[in-house]
Amino acid sequence: MSETTYTVTGMTCDHCVRSVIEEVAKIDGVTGVLVDLPTGAVTVTGTREPAAADVRAAVEEAGYTLTA
Amino acid sequence: MSETTYTVTGMTCDHCVRSVIEEVAKIDGVTGVLVDLPTGAVTVTGTREPAAADVRAAVEEAGYTLTA
Repeated sequence: MSETTYTVTGMTCDHCVRSVIEEVAKIDGVTGVLVDLPTGAVTVTGTREPAAADVRAAVEEAGYTLTA
Repeated sequence: MSETTYTVTGMTCDHCVRSVIEEVAKIDGVTGVLVDLPTGAVTVTGTREPAAADVRAAVEEAGYTLTA
């Protein structure tokens, strides 16, 4: 099991949060996504740590920016 | 904040897990979804507890069954 927290900027509302969850959940091996809207923290749980490039692509697909 | 754990039957692989996360994430107010495949436990975090009917509908939309 792996749990990694990223920082996403640009999310302003619950709809943003759901878009990020939906896109990140599409990455192979992801079993959970938790977003803290005030801080932009996105915690991804999975059977293994996802490739950073995959997380970045998913966040950008949702319309936001991965900053860390 | 609210955190509720449901039990979903019928998930057999990572693809099932991702389908459930994607559908449950569409419910208003949901900020996180975490699935434990071996037990079928689906933990939903949100700004408020989602309506049970909404969770049931999302799980069924993904193709699985909410049992608790």
